[in-house]
Order: sequence, then structure tokens, then C-alpha cells
Amino acid sequence: MVKLTGVSGERIQTAAQCMAAEAAGSDNIRVFGMVHGIQDMGKFTFLTLRVRDGLIQCVVGNENDILPDVKKESAVEITGERVSEARAKHGFEIHIREIRILSVPKEDMPVNINKRGLNVGTETDLTYRPATLRGAAKRAAFRLQAGLAAGFRDFLGHNGFTEIFSPKIVAHGAEGGANIFKLDYFGKKAFLAQSPQFYKQTMVPVYGRVFEIGPVFRAEKHDTARHLNEYVSVDFEMGFIDSFYDVMNMETAMLRHTFAFLREQYADVLEELRLELPSVKEIPTVRFAQAKQMVAERYGRKIKDPYDLEPEEERLIGELFLETENSDFVFVTHYPSKKRPFYAMDDPEDPKFTLSFDLLYKGMEITTGGQRIHDYDAQTTKMLAKGLDPGDFESYLMLHKYGCPPHGGLGLGLERLCMKLLDKSNIRETSLFPRDTQRLTP
Amino acid sequence: MVKLTGVSGERIQTAAQCMAAEAAGSDNIRVFGMVHGIQDMGKFTFLTLRVRDGLIQCVVGNENDILPDVKKESAVEITGERVSEARAKHGFEIHIREIRILSVPKEDMPVNINKRGLNVGTETDLTYRPATLRGAAKRAAFRLQAGLAAGFRDFLGHNGFTEIFSPKIVAHGAEGGANIFKLDYFGKKAFLAQSPQFYKQTMVPVYGRVFEIGPVFRAEKHDTARHLNEYVSVDFEMGFIDSFYDVMNMETAMLRHTFAFLREQYADVLEELRLELPSVKEIPTVRFAQAKQMVAERYGRKIKDPYDLEPEEERLIGELFLETENSDFVFVTHYPSKKRPFYAMDDPEDPKFTLSFDLLYKGMEITTGGQRIHDYDAQTTKMLAKGLDPGDFESYLMLHKYGCPPHGGLGLGLERLCMKLLDKSNIRETSLFPRDTQRLTP
Repeated sequence: MVKLTGVSGERIQTAAQCMAAEAAGSDNIRVFGMVHGIQDMGKFTFLTLRVRDGLIQCVVGNENDILPDVKKESAVEITGERVSEARAKHGFEIHIREIRILSVPKEDMPVNINKRGLNVGTETDLTYRPATLRGAAKRAAFRLQAGLAAGFRDFLGHNGFTEIFSPKIVAHGAEGGANIFKLDYFGKKAFLAQSPQFYKQTMVPVYGRVFEIGPVFRAEKHDTARHLNEYVSVDFEMGFIDSFYDVMNMETAMLRHTFAFLREQYADVLEELRLELPSVKEIPTVRFAQAKQMVAERYGRKIKDPYDLEPEEERLIGELFLETENSDFVFVTHYPSKKRPFYAMDDPEDPKFTLSFDLLYKGMEITTGGQRIHDYDAQTTKMLAKGLDPGDFESYLMLHKYGCPPHGGLGLGLERLCMKLLDKSNIRETSLFPRDTQRLTP
Repeated sequence: MVKLTGVSGERIQTAAQCMAAEAAGSDNIRVFGMVHGIQDMGKFTFLTLRVRDGLIQCVVGNENDILPDVKKESAVEITGERVSEARAKHGFEIHIREIRILSVPKEDMPVNINKRGLNVGTETDLTYRPATLRGAAKRAAFRLQAGLAAGFRDFLGHNGFTEIFSPKIVAHGAEGGANIFKLDYFGKKAFLAQSPQFYKQTMVPVYGRVFEIGPVFRAEKHDTARHLNEYVSVDFEMGFIDSFYDVMNMETAMLRHTFAFLREQYADVLEELRLELPSVKEIPTVRFAQAKQMVAERYGRKIKDPYDLEPEEERLIGELFLETENSDFVFVTHYPSKKRPFYAMDDPEDPKFTLSFDLLYKGMEITTGGQRIHDYDAQTTKMLAKGLDPGDFESYLMLHKYGCPPHGGLGLGLERLCMKLLDKSNIRETSLFPRDTQRLTP
């Protein structure tokens, strides 16, 4: 009987393992990877091997005649000598002795992924994502995304937040409005969760602080460069806050920690992306109404919608605070009650506004958050005022009915943060397989 | 202008912080928490305060008359003296000087959560989940779930797996069959992903090893104690495998690491649950056909379905291997091709069977995995043999068309693993807000 012990014969699949192998005295190594590029130099050929942590330069003299069958994007096992080479990326190259072909692609790649920066339009990129993702810049961009998620979890775990897994098929939308996907659920009407809002609030009396990083769904009908119909939301909710500034302070600390985490643990990715992460020392705040006024005055704009910020206004607020406060980040606070969901707590000093905020980064909203209503009567009263029937929200209202502490939280769009960190102009650049009104594949 | 520095006035919200406060010389502390229980002892009253990391015993003499307004599940701020008390859980109790009430519940709790083990039926539990989750056993059970996810990520991160976020709204089901939720996607027919199968495979040539922990959706029409219509799947996929035993070895190592991680970092949770985690030294394997035969002979059963295991057969296989191999875990390998999805690689030695496996734990399937087809022609041929049109899977097949290494992977059901670890008889016990054919709320 085969019994599994958890130990497989280790196969070298990274540049780091190659380097460790040399340190251990082995100069005859076997490496597994994908053929990323082949360049015939006349007397010899460079073969670039794509491994988990990057690209390895391999060389073989053409007299050896061992390369003719090797195609780009073949999976191969290379046996050879690891030789120091200062000009190569990792300080070594492999002199190939033997290549074993493990798989051969059916067709050539539809795009050239060897150039720095993919030289194709967005449509082509999106259509061929399974192929274009193999390029170095895209690999690094989505490693950055993974690193951000890991950094957020690291921070939240160390600050007493418990991870939760809340359902995505739900009976009611949390954010209101028509931008919600419907589905038939065994004959009942159901929806895809626009956010884990109800559930993370429900968990506050249970754990005090909770978080979830997962998909959310918005049936936005307009295609823009900053909207996705499905995205990854980083959500947290925290109890026993003194004010909604506690939530903003927590986000400030989370961003600072996460960028430090990336500098330490994802240095190779930042180098590949030539990315200098922002230092988050302090983040200025401005009230919604004041921000609107400032931008109108400074840039000679008319205020069209007094209840919400237009994308162009967000951009100008970002510009203004970069200029005056030298900050790429700015918290816009006290959004009008009219445009915030029913669970937002009104400002007792002026109930036309809420104790809520958006975080703008480089002129774009990346987070929405605020203090929530914790009192049952206050919550049902606000629901009625907004034309909602509390009877529809019975299970959510158990939170308030059976008691909960003052609390607040936020949701951060992971793709938007990546997009602005990388100065991309289209959010589809930072979603692996984006969903927009036109795209269900790949 | 308010500027946020990331630092809020620290509010004590845990027993650990209380203990640290004493160490720092403070015996007059302020703690924030929920009133978990109140017990009048005549001359004095015990108040149990629920904080993030457990329960704190607080005491006040009844002559002080400061408790009358305090109700269970009120959020409070308690000021008092931290006094050593060997009989109290954390080795101290708080002698209350002052209570400030932060919120008051509208109604009394619908169930008593103070008893060890909730004394209500499943239906009541599920209906009142927002309340029942506040009990100690449930809090611990879902902390275990969070800890398992953290442990898996820790293992996978250290073994070169990159986290991915794949779309849940998809154009095609990955697992076939009718148990898939449909939705209207801007006039197009779309589905909820039954697994991230296509996407994790697609990412193998990109990163070599990838993982995702996220929701998957199955429109199973029958209500059983072991099925959910939405669950959390722990998925990984790895390239350059030598055989599907590499995948099983990786899972064996992952379980071993994760249980060690929990013993170290979640000791309080394991103690609360009185849970001794299994030691995973080695896991026996048995071929599907052989397992079926063994169970038929040993327990005098007739083989009804030669292509799949009945739940009762899984149970008996578990029983058998516990008896003969002293193992709660057993890998059943080489499932019939007929019942495995089109992407499963057939065994070259006998193509009626696949290089696939299930992991049974305590007689229940918790994982399905195997080696996948990596060759384009082999994949399209198998699709056609299964009556599928390769044209429907164009974007998935880019993986094979443009080249991918031999690879395999698995999906592990998080709730099932929790269920069996905790010896629960119903999977709804280990899903925060379970979705079954009857339940969309809470």
C-alpha cells in the first residue's frame, strides 16, 4: 500500500532553489520551468526559463543540437551547470547539458510577452489574458495584489480582527439601488451580495472586530474605466469605537503596515514593477461640503450634484490635497445622508450629514466607510424615513434588537488600490479576469 | 484640519490587555465589552463581560447599586480594579467601580447562550444565528475555521503558492451536471462558479503554484446533513508534478502544518473546544475499486453503483481504515473516468480510471483532487467523448493551446473539515450563515 508522508522528491522550480543548490555545492542541477523565450545568438542560444520566482537565463552552444524541438511555452526539465554570471538577473546562468520536454503547446502564443510592457490594446489583452498573464509585468502586478491581501490580513490578525466567511447569495441587498444581480434560488428570489455589510455588522457583538476579503457583486450598467461588476472587497468592522475617526485611524495604520510589509516581503515584486510605495505618515481630512466648495472655487466649477462627488471632483480634490498637503491620500468625511445607505449613522450635530467617509487615493475613491447605527429604534426609524420596510430586514435587525456596541467599518476595493498604486488608467488592468457588462470570459 | 496618524486612544477590549495593564502597574482599568451574563449572589453580583478573547469575571457589591440598569447584551465600559483571583479563568477578576452603558438591547436574547453547549434545536439555532453565535462554543468553532484558513495560507505561502482571486460569475460550469445556479448577466446567461477549477489551472503556467480560499456554489437540490449550497473551498493547483501522488503529499503536509499552526497559535480555541487535533504522520491510500470491494466483503454489502461511493460506503471505508491502519484519514484513488469531470487525466495503464482521488476524513469526503490533462489534443478528445463541445470552452482551452506543464490540484471543503474535526453531525453547525434549499436568511 502506498502511504503518503507529505514528502515528495523535491523538484527545483525557483531561482532561489537554484542558488541554494549551488551553496550546497551542487553545480549539476535540474530545474523545472516554462520556456519563456529563445534567442539564437549564432554560436549559442539563450533560453529564458520561467520559474515561480522569475526568469532564469540558460545558455547552450548551438553545436550541441539539443534545442531544435524546444518551443516557447514548452514545459521543460533542464539539467546543467550553474555558473556565476554577474550580468544575469540572479547572478548566475545555467549551461544546459540536457533538456527534457514535458509538454508542447499546440499553437504559438497570440502575443509577444517577452517585451517589457505588453504592446497590445486592452481588448486583445483581455481576450488573451490566459496568455498575457505570463508576461513579467502582469505576473508582478498580480503578485502585488496577493501581497496586499497578505499584508492586510497580517495587520488585521495582529489587531484582533477575526476572519469571517459570509454568504454571497443573499435575500436582500445591503447597498440599496438597482445595481444588484438577481438569481432564482430554488424558486425564491435571491441576490448576489453587494457587500458583506449585514454580516460583518452581525459579527461585531460576537468577535468585536471582524474582517473578510472576498468577492462582491455590483450590477452597474455603465462601463467605465473604474468600475467592475465583480471585485474583491477588503472589509472590516470594529466595535467599541469612540467615533468614526477610529475607523479612519485603523485604515491609516493598516495601509502603513501593509506597505511596510510589502517592502519587506515583496521587494522583488516592487523592483520588477519599479514601484515606490507611498509612505503613509498622516492623512488629511476634509468635510464633503467643504471639499466640494473648495474645488468649485479653486477650479471655477459649478456644483451640479450637491449630494455626491463626480469623478472629476474626486480627481480635483486629489490634486488639491497633493498640492496643499503633499498627500496622495485624503479622507472626505460627512457625506450627505441622502446618498448614504440606511445603516449610516447621521451626525447628531447635523443629521443632514452622516458620520461616514470615503478615502480618496490619487483622486479616486478606494474606500467607503463610517460609523453605523447601533440602536434598534434609530435604525428602524431611518429605514422608514428612507421608504424601507423594517420587516424585510428581520434577520439583520437581530443585531440591533439583541444588542450591539457602537461600531463602524469600511470596504476597500482591492483592484482600485492596485490600479492607483500602479498608475493604470483602466481597472481591468488589475483584475485577473475582469467582469464588465460585455465580458464573461475568460 | 483633523489629520489621521493611525493612532487612536487605545481602548482595552481583551483579557490579555487587562493582564498587560496590570503588569504595567495599573490596577485601575477601563474595559469595553458586552454583558454576557449577570448573576445576583445576594450580597454581590457577578457580571461576565464578553471581550474579544473570551469572558472576564467582574464583581460588584450590591450595596453599590450601580447595576440595576444593566441588561444582558448591553455594551458597557467598566472601570474598576483588577484583582488576582485564582479561580477566575484568566487568573483575575475586576472589582467594578463604575459602569457606563454604551448601548442597550431592544429585547432579551431569544436563547440562553450562557450554558455550555446551546440547548436548542438546529432550526432555532439557525433562525437566531446572529444571537446564538455569541455563545462561547460557537465563537470558538468559527475561530477554528478562521485559524484553519490562516494555517492553510501560512503553509501555501511558504511553499511557493501565489494567492489568486478568480471570478465567481462565469460563462460555463467547471464540474458539469445540473447543480449550477444561473443568473441573467446583462442579457447574457451566466452561472455561479462551482469551483475556481478553470482559473486555477489557467494560472499554473503563470505562477507555477496558486491557491484560492473562497466561496463556491452548488445548486444541489437535496437537503442533507453534509451538503451546503454555498461553501468555502480551499483550492490549490501545482505545476510540474511527477504524478498525482505529489498533490496528495502536498495535502498531507498542508494538514500536518495547519494542525501544528493551530496548536501553537489557537491554543485557547482548542482548549475551549476541548479539541485534540489529529496528528498527521502518514495517510494510507486505497484504490477506488479495491475500497468498494473491501467494504462489500467486510460488511456484506451489495455494490449498487460501481462508479461512485455512497455516503454509507465512505463511512465504512473510514471505519475500516481506522481499524486496520489506525488512521482517520484515507486517500481513495483512481476514481472511474465516467464519474470524474472532463479535465481529469485518465490513468494510462487503464483509462477507465482516472489519476484522481478523494480524501476521506472520519468516513466523509473532504477533498477531491487529481492530475489534470495538460495536452490540448488529449483534452479536446476527452471533451468530445463526454459529449461536450470544445468550442464552448475556448478561453479555458487557451491554457492547453498555449502550453502548460503537467499539473494537478485539489479542492477542500472548509466547513466539512470543521464539521468532522468537531464531530458535528450537521454541516450547518460549521457554516456561519448556512445556505440550503430552504434558507436564504439570516
